[in-house]
Amino acid sequence: MTPDSRKDLSRFFARVDELQGHFINRLRKAVEIPSISSYAESRNDVLRMSELLKAEMESLGIEVDLKPLGTEPCTSLELPPIILGQYGRDPQKPTILVYSHYDVQPASLSDGWDQDPWKLEITADGRLCGRGTSDDKGPLLNWLNMIEAFQTLGQDFPANLLFWFEGMEESGSTGLRAALEEEAPKFAADADAVCVTDTIWASSSQPSITQGLRGVLFYVISITGAKQDAHSGMFGGQISEPMTDMVSIMSSLVSSSGNILIPGILDQVSPVTAEEKSSYESLKLSEQDLDCGIGARALHESAVDVLISRWRKPALSLHRIENAMPGAGATTCIPARISGKFSIRTVPNMEASEVDGLVQHHIQNHFDQLGSRNDLEIKCVHQSDWFFENASHWNYQAAINATKTVWNHEPSVACEGGSIPVALDFKQVLKKNVLLLPVGRPTDGAHSINEKLGKINYIDSIKLYGSYLAETARLWKAR
Amino acid sequence: MTPDSRKDLSRFFARVDELQGHFINRLRKAVEIPSISSYAESRNDVLRMSELLKAEMESLGIEVDLKPLGTEPCTSLELPPIILGQYGRDPQKPTILVYSHYDVQPASLSDGWDQDPWKLEITADGRLCGRGTSDDKGPLLNWLNMIEAFQTLGQDFPANLLFWFEGMEESGSTGLRAALEEEAPKFAADADAVCVTDTIWASSSQPSITQGLRGVLFYVISITGAKQDAHSGMFGGQISEPMTDMVSIMSSLVSSSGNILIPGILDQVSPVTAEEKSSYESLKLSEQDLDCGIGARALHESAVDVLISRWRKPALSLHRIENAMPGAGATTCIPARISGKFSIRTVPNMEASEVDGLVQHHIQNHFDQLGSRNDLEIKCVHQSDWFFENASHWNYQAAINATKTVWNHEPSVACEGGSIPVALDFKQVLKKNVLLLPVGRPTDGAHSINEKLGKINYIDSIKLYGSYLAETARLWKAR
Repeated sequence: MTPDSRKDLSRFFARVDELQGHFINRLRKAVEIPSISSYAESRNDVLRMSELLKAEMESLGIEVDLKPLGTEPCTSLELPPIILGQYGRDPQKPTILVYSHYDVQPASLSDGWDQDPWKLEITADGRLCGRGTSDDKGPLLNWLNMIEAFQTLGQDFPANLLFWFEGMEESGSTGLRAALEEEAPKFAADADAVCVTDTIWASSSQPSITQGLRGVLFYVISITGAKQDAHSGMFGGQISEPMTDMVSIMSSLVSSSGNILIPGILDQVSPVTAEEKSSYESLKLSEQDLDCGIGARALHESAVDVLISRWRKPALSLHRIENAMPGAGATTCIPARISGKFSIRTVPNMEASEVDGLVQHHIQNHFDQLGSRNDLEIKCVHQSDWFFENASHWNYQAAINATKTVWNHEPSVACEGGSIPVALDFKQVLKKNVLLLPVGRPTDGAHSINEKLGKINYIDSIKLYGSYLAETARLWKAR
Repeated sequence: MTPDSRKDLSRFFARVDELQGHFINRLRKAVEIPSISSYAESRNDVLRMSELLKAEMESLGIEVDLKPLGTEPCTSLELPPIILGQYGRDPQKPTILVYSHYDVQPASLSDGWDQDPWKLEITADGRLCGRGTSDDKGPLLNWLNMIEAFQTLGQDFPANLLFWFEGMEESGSTGLRAALEEEAPKFAADADAVCVTDTIWASSSQPSITQGLRGVLFYVISITGAKQDAHSGMFGGQISEPMTDMVSIMSSLVSSSGNILIPGILDQVSPVTAEEKSSYESLKLSEQDLDCGIGARALHESAVDVLISRWRKPALSLHRIENAMPGAGATTCIPARISGKFSIRTVPNMEASEVDGLVQHHIQNHFDQLGSRNDLEIKCVHQSDWFFENASHWNYQAAINATKTVWNHEPSVACEGGSIPVALDFKQVLKKNVLLLPVGRPTDGAHSINEKLGKINYIDSIKLYGSYLAETARLWKAR
């Protein structure tokens, strides 16, 4: 970085600090719109949110197009549009496509919130509280905040930006993949790299960059016996009970110590390298970082083993066993039909189709050996692959350098245990490097009650975005 | 039976037939009162039902006392009284204490009834349809119908009767045991035998007498891990999951072929005798009798094996696995707390306390071997012993003879797979022989939609009750 650009950045940082009240008001307006994508009755609020963003973006000189996605399958509900925005078309600058989402998770006081989730409350210790502050309205609005700070300084903007703001992320990103394939050779044709701002730091105390995500295969097993629930006094011992088969199958999948028991599943897992392991060691995570306050019984002693289990090993979780027949509430019933739900988180280099083959074969084989007279159905209802990106790319290096500049801390390049299918969509369709640039912290309660974003994370991420773009310009030119 | 008493009975039978329209109207009035004991909002209807019965009984010259039971535990709801009635005090006649109940199961059109469940509908093929017709208003009212038929003939009544009509049977018979212990040396002091009319024929085509019932122990296992549900992306593989422990425990209890896997449980089961087996063979049950239309997958081929599994073998059924935390509906959660419910039906000569000891030991032992870091709790929340009565007693012989007279068919002496705790209460407290005299058929749908009682079963059971009392008088004198 040249002395000039350093000076430019420090003026930019100071301006961001000066404008923080204004930026917090921008977040306040956004939080007040309950843009819950999973509730039909909130759909108008999601649409209202897209209109608000369009107006704000246009006031900053961004060209905006609301890309309609038609109606939601099996409903007559209009899907929230994808907000496509373009800011700058200078061929001498890199073009970064940025992704965020403007829909949120549901929230209500009755869930246990300490405040109205749809009013931004600022605590004395600097937390910005309200639904969407961390996931993902704060990270989204910071792109606008950053542009505004540059504009008020009259400084040259370091990069071209393409905005891809989605309104269905919390509801499975309906319509996104098709829209992306359509726009890849058009709107997104000039993108040099992608920056997704929808992840969190690995630790609650120090910044990190997200390089990898686990994939997920979600299964529903159904076992059907009689036509209706039966009284266990009359029929107990006389008939083949679906629940008995179900618990036998479920218990054949994973052990109490978390080991996946399906033969062959672990064969595809790429070994954890010494380099990875030492990067995990450098994270110095606290117990609170690892537990996030849920008071879980940990299977692993050391922080490194926890991180390996979270990011670099597949996991199988049993979610629910449901009696599917109405009236199954009567406690002495033998339920006629049982559904069992479980998921497998995948890691490099597991192939989803191969995993699925092993799972189906194992369950069918186990069921056959039970000699049950019931009917079995196995469905993989959802799958998305793991994601792992090349962190030596200039896109990641720019983010690493920017983090050092803003947070004064070498960020760890970490993973997340969860799955963000859109990251993989961008990587597969655009074939560009996809950076996951975190804004919030693991203690923000993104999908939980009392969601917050630290004021310091909100304001300093504006600086981070600006720094990141300055770095992309430098590294892209030098590449 | 003397020629005179035969003549008396045939006049009685003819009178019952003459009065059948009147008796059906009595049932109609009773069905119209939705005396559902399990709904707080129906409690007044249960009380109203007790008043109607009191009035009807007094109009027949029965001395009636409504025995109050106080309020229902944990509520301010008045418990329905036990209707105590006395008819006759002739020391030259036997005194039979009869038990029925006047409360019913819930019912509503929305459950799938073909008709308003609270209106008596009579079909062309002779079914009396409506909630409570079979369970247990029809069998109860037949005691009054029988007395009325005798009275209109001016015939001498063969026995003394003590009535014990309960209004909480469908809700666990709250207060019954204590009331019985209190009344044993008072109201019930003169009872020579007990007759419970709350069971059904073993077959849908031919009458039987019920001699035995299975007992039941109902268990709730709870396994607790974290303080709250966890996201499986973040925590899968990292924490000890209660559901994994639960399915392992559940699958260690019973096999898909219905064999109980808890060591020692089968040791106490008394072997099925050749005599029993041949009595089961004589039943000649159809497939429909065994399946009752539920379309279950049977574990046994022959009817005799089905009956042995239903009446003479213990059975273990897994009822439900529940995620106990609110918000557990989110499908990729790792539930923090899981409850599993199962029950064991017991048979002679299993000791409930010994069974409970074996169950608790097995589950704790299995859990310990899992090496889980979660917490386990095992609770036996309900237990009632099996019931098996001496069928060579004059009380049973009277019922067998009466059945032959009325139905022209030697009844089988059968069992039921379910549990009726009050039968055991009467046996244990009064120390008298307890006869279970069935009125309806297994296809009546007692706890289900479209409950009915065949008109022929309703009317001919009035004759059966009269015949039975005449026989008790004869056999009691000759004993």
